[in-house]
Amino acid sequence: MKTKDKILQASLQLFNEEGEQDVTSVDIANVLDMSPGNLYYHFKGKDPIIRQLFLDFEEEFKMVLQAPIEKSLELSDNWVYFYILFEEVADFRFFYRNLQGLVERYGDLEQRFRSLVNLKIKTMASIIFDLDKQGFIDIGRIEAEQMAERFAQQLTYWPTYHSLMAPQLSLPVSIHNGVFSLISQLTPYVSGGSAEFLALTTEFRDKMLKGVKRK
Amino acid sequence: MKTKDKILQASLQLFNEEGEQDVTSVDIANVLDMSPGNLYYHFKGKDPIIRQLFLDFEEEFKMVLQAPIEKSLELSDNWVYFYILFEEVADFRFFYRNLQGLVERYGDLEQRFRSLVNLKIKTMASIIFDLDKQGFIDIGRIEAEQMAERFAQQLTYWPTYHSLMAPQLSLPVSIHNGVFSLISQLTPYVSGGSAEFLALTTEFRDKMLKGVKRK
Repeated sequence: MKTKDKILQASLQLFNEEGEQDVTSVDIANVLDMSPGNLYYHFKGKDPIIRQLFLDFEEEFKMVLQAPIEKSLELSDNWVYFYILFEEVADFRFFYRNLQGLVERYGDLEQRFRSLVNLKIKTMASIIFDLDKQGFIDIGRIEAEQMAERFAQQLTYWPTYHSLMAPQLSLPVSIHNGVFSLISQLTPYVSGGSAEFLALTTEFRDKMLKGVKRK
Repeated sequence: MKTKDKILQASLQLFNEEGEQDVTSVDIANVLDMSPGNLYYHFKGKDPIIRQLFLDFEEEFKMVLQAPIEKSLELSDNWVYFYILFEEVADFRFFYRNLQGLVERYGDLEQRFRSLVNLKIKTMASIIFDLDKQGFIDIGRIEAEQMAERFAQQLTYWPTYHSLMAPQLSLPVSIHNGVFSLISQLTPYVSGGSAEFLALTTEFRDKMLKGVKRK
């Protein structure tokens, strides 16, 4: 692995664990057993590291979000896809810890972050309309649009909600709860006879309840 | 009005408008045409101001959240009540701008803030179960609990979402959208014949669509 990538990886981990504001570039150099001068040779401080991490996140997340717009998913792929989205957010969760503070300090990221959330809404709408078109659910346009925006919101704020309300929950359990929360909103719209859909939701719920009991 | 209250009121306004981190106690004194020494006589810096504002917010919000737990609301009072909740949050929205940063800096507020969100969930559950009991909606326990938590989340994160995604929207329009977003989630659970409920939702939606078109 190139030194630049090692620095990015270590920074991401530190930021996620400690919150970005409390981490200095010296901390990052220390973790890597590297002199601050050597780190400075690759990145001129913390700012360019954060920008590079954002570019990486943006590129990857856009690619993932684009997929179901270009080609519809099979029914059970939707749930897997929701997991992937939550995991993408978890991988870069330090961005969401204090999103408003971050975009205030890095003003040029605000518009880009807004575009990402808009792309989330578009993707979610695409999935919901597709479930409707395939006959798994029966939902009106306004309600579907409301739901798409809600899904995007939930996906955006879950890491903050998680660390405020249930920091003792492991990330995988928290993600499972998040996915279930999205799916359960589709339940009342399930068209009669979509046994496949209901079976999937029940399976999810049971896993979640087991996860909660394990605590 | 007592000087102490004047200081609190001016601070709250400044914090809401500019974000708490960028405001100093000298800024607050300036707005009030007061010497920093006089302000210091009443509050020993910004920290005790923030704590006092939190105590005021907590006291008021708890009182408001307790109401529908103690006594159920009439159907149409629910919507008014949702407005009041959103407005309470808007009045103290600087707390929500960077909630995670705030509770990190004021560690003792974290537990209290978590309790407030838990009380929000309890209130929302109480409202939803009550609508079910009165026969306006028909919803299962797990879905109702999921919805209650979602309502509490939406109420908590809407100021952040609003300022990231639609800072050009006025607060009243944003609050109207927020209330509609809560209400529209109840729609698929409406029991046959609840004409009153559907009429209310439609009225809300129409107002919202008009508000959006006005932009």
